[in-house]
Amino acid sequence: MKRRNFLTQAALGTTAAALATPALAGSHGATKTMTIVSTWPRDFPGLGTSAQRFAERVTNLSNGAITTEYFAAGERVGAFDAFDEVASGNSQAYIGADYYWTGKHPAYAFFTSVPFGLTHPEHSAWIKFGGGQALWDKLSGEFGIKPLLVGATGTQAGGWFNKEINSADDFKGLKMRIPGLGGNVLVKLGASTVSLPGGQIYENLVSGSIDATEWVGPYNDYFMKFYEAAKYYYTGGMHEPGSDLALGVNKAWWDTLSPWEQSIIEAASDQEAAAMYEEAIALNGPYLKKLVDEQGVQVRSFNDDTWDAMYAAWEEVLEETRAHSPLAAEIADAYVAAIESEGGFLAKFEVEFVNQRNRVMGLD
Amino acid sequence: MKRRNFLTQAALGTTAAALATPALAGSHGATKTMTIVSTWPRDFPGLGTSAQRFAERVTNLSNGAITTEYFAAGERVGAFDAFDEVASGNSQAYIGADYYWTGKHPAYAFFTSVPFGLTHPEHSAWIKFGGGQALWDKLSGEFGIKPLLVGATGTQAGGWFNKEINSADDFKGLKMRIPGLGGNVLVKLGASTVSLPGGQIYENLVSGSIDATEWVGPYNDYFMKFYEAAKYYYTGGMHEPGSDLALGVNKAWWDTLSPWEQSIIEAASDQEAAAMYEEAIALNGPYLKKLVDEQGVQVRSFNDDTWDAMYAAWEEVLEETRAHSPLAAEIADAYVAAIESEGGFLAKFEVEFVNQRNRVMGLD
Repeated sequence: MKRRNFLTQAALGTTAAALATPALAGSHGATKTMTIVSTWPRDFPGLGTSAQRFAERVTNLSNGAITTEYFAAGERVGAFDAFDEVASGNSQAYIGADYYWTGKHPAYAFFTSVPFGLTHPEHSAWIKFGGGQALWDKLSGEFGIKPLLVGATGTQAGGWFNKEINSADDFKGLKMRIPGLGGNVLVKLGASTVSLPGGQIYENLVSGSIDATEWVGPYNDYFMKFYEAAKYYYTGGMHEPGSDLALGVNKAWWDTLSPWEQSIIEAASDQEAAAMYEEAIALNGPYLKKLVDEQGVQVRSFNDDTWDAMYAAWEEVLEETRAHSPLAAEIADAYVAAIESEGGFLAKFEVEFVNQRNRVMGLD
Repeated sequence: MKRRNFLTQAALGTTAAALATPALAGSHGATKTMTIVSTWPRDFPGLGTSAQRFAERVTNLSNGAITTEYFAAGERVGAFDAFDEVASGNSQAYIGADYYWTGKHPAYAFFTSVPFGLTHPEHSAWIKFGGGQALWDKLSGEFGIKPLLVGATGTQAGGWFNKEINSADDFKGLKMRIPGLGGNVLVKLGASTVSLPGGQIYENLVSGSIDATEWVGPYNDYFMKFYEAAKYYYTGGMHEPGSDLALGVNKAWWDTLSPWEQSIIEAASDQEAAAMYEEAIALNGPYLKKLVDEQGVQVRSFNDDTWDAMYAAWEEVLEETRAHSPLAAEIADAYVAAIESEGGFLAKFEVEFVNQRNRVMGLD
C-alpha cells in the first residue's frame, strides 16, 4: 500500500471510529484522543470484539475525557506494522500479541506466551504481583512504549492437522503456521514453520501451502473453518498456555496523562484482560461441541512421548533465547522462577482439586 | 454492643475513613458517599487489604465523584450483620462472602463456592458470560441488593488438622470450623461443624473447642498461626474451589447512580476480583514454603477414597439444597451445567496442559 492511500484510509477510518464511540457528555472540559491500532480483524470473535470493547470502556469510564478511535488490522496500518505505528507516535496505542515483535527483541515472547509457560491466571499474577510488570516496562521502555495486559485467550489448542500426530516424528517435514517460540520448538523436531496473520491462514491451508495451523481455541477457531482442510483438532498444546495480549501505549503520550486518566486506562485494561479470558472459558465448551457435532472434527490429544520430545526441544530453544542478551536472560529466568513457584503451588491446590473434581464427575 | 455506642463508633469511623480516602480534586461537582461495611478484619492480608483497595479504587476512578467510607468488621457492624446493614439502607454496600447469608436463602452458597464446584476462573466466566449474573441479581433482588463479584481467594486449603486424615472415617466425631455447604458435607461424614468469623477461630482451636479448621490458603493462613495447634495442613480441598467474594450494593441507592457512576463501581469490582486472585497465586507458593520451613507444617493431600466419600456426601447435600425452592433448584442446575461445560472444556485444554507441564518439569 502506498503512503498516500494509507493516510486517506486512516482519515476515513478516524471518522468511522469516532462515530462508533462518541464522547459522552462529560464535565471534564477538554478531551484527549487515543488512537488505537490493532492486530486483529474488525469484529473478529474474541480477539477483535474484545479489543473493540476495550476502546469503548476507555471512552465510557473516562466519561468522555479520553475519546478513543479504534482501527482494526489493515484499517490504518497492517497488523504487523502496529508496533512501529505506536513507537513512532503516529498512533497512541496498539492492541496485539507482543510475540509478534520478537524481531525487535526475542524476550517479547515471554509477554504473550512461551512453550511450557504460564497459564493466564499465572501470567497475570506474575505481571501484577510477581515482578513481571517491571520487566515488561524495562523491555518496552527501550522502544518508547508503556505496556499493559489487556486480554488473554487461555490455553490454546494444539492445532489443526490433516493427519494424526502419534509421535514427535510426525512433525518431520510438516509445514505449519505457528508463530512465536512454539514454532522454534517444532522446527527442532523437523517441521518448517511460518507466521501468518489470522486473515491469511485459511487460504494457505486450503491451497496446501501449509499442512497444519494453530490459531486459538474452539470459540475463535470455529469461525476460521480450518476443519474444511484439516480435520484432526488437538487439545491444549505446549506452545501457548496463556496467550496474554498487550496494550502498548506510546510512552511520551502516556506521560502527558494525569494519574486519573492513567488509572482509567489501567482499569479498562484490567477489565478486558479478565473479560476476554472469561468469555473464552464460557464459550469454548459449546463451540468445541459444535465443531464435533456439526463439522465432524476429530478431537485428539498429544501423547506423553510427544510431550516429552517437545519439552526437550523447548529446553534448547529457551537456552538460545536466554543467550540473546542480559535482558533476555533476566526475563527468561524470572519467568521460569514464576512457573516453578506459582505452578508448583497450584499443582497442590487448584489443579489437584480440578483433577479430583473432574475424576469423580467423569469430566474429561 | 448497644445501639448508642454503635452510632458513636460509626460516626468516629466515618471521620477516619474519610481521611483515609480523600476525594480527589474532581470536576464533577456534587459528590456521592458510599459507605461500605466488610466482613473482614482491618488490614487483614488478602481479604481485608483487597476490600480496602476496592474502596480506594472507587474514589480514585470516579475522580472523587463517589467518596467511599470503608468499615472493617466490627467497626460499624459485626461481620455477620453486614447484609442487614445494607438491605436496610443504613449503609450503601457490603463486601463479604455471600455464603454467610445461607440463612436468608441457601442458594447464596453458589455465589461464593460450593463443594466440587467452580474454580474462580470458571465462576467468573459463569457470572459474566454464562448467565450467572442474572441469577445472582434475581436472588439478591429479593433482598433489595445488587451483587457484583469483587474478589476471589482461589481454591482453598483442605484445612488444618491435629491428626492425619487417611479415610472418611477420620472425620467422625471431629469438631471443625467450616462454613457453607462444605460443612454440611462433613456433617454427613460424621463431623460436627461450626461457622466462626476469622477473628474467633484461633482461640477456639488453641483451647480445643474445635479440632480442625479451614480458612483460606497459605498466604492468608500464615498470619492466623493455626499451626500452633494443628500441624497437618491439607492441600486443595473439596469445599471451596473458588471462593468468590461479593460486593452487595443497596439496590435503591444503586438505581440513583448514573450509568457512568455504575460503570466506575463495576470497573473497580472487576479490577479487584482479578487482583485478589492474582495476589493469592503470586504469594501462596512462597507462604506455603515459609509454613513448612519456618513452622514445620506437615503438608498432606486427601486420598482418592476420601475424595470419593466426600463426593457421595456432596451429592446428597446438593439434592437437599435444590429441594429448598424453585429458585434454589434453578440456580443449582445452572451452576452444575456450568461445571460440566466449562470444566469439561478446561480438562482438555488448560488442565491437560498444566498436568503435562508439571509432569515434565517435576512440579507437584
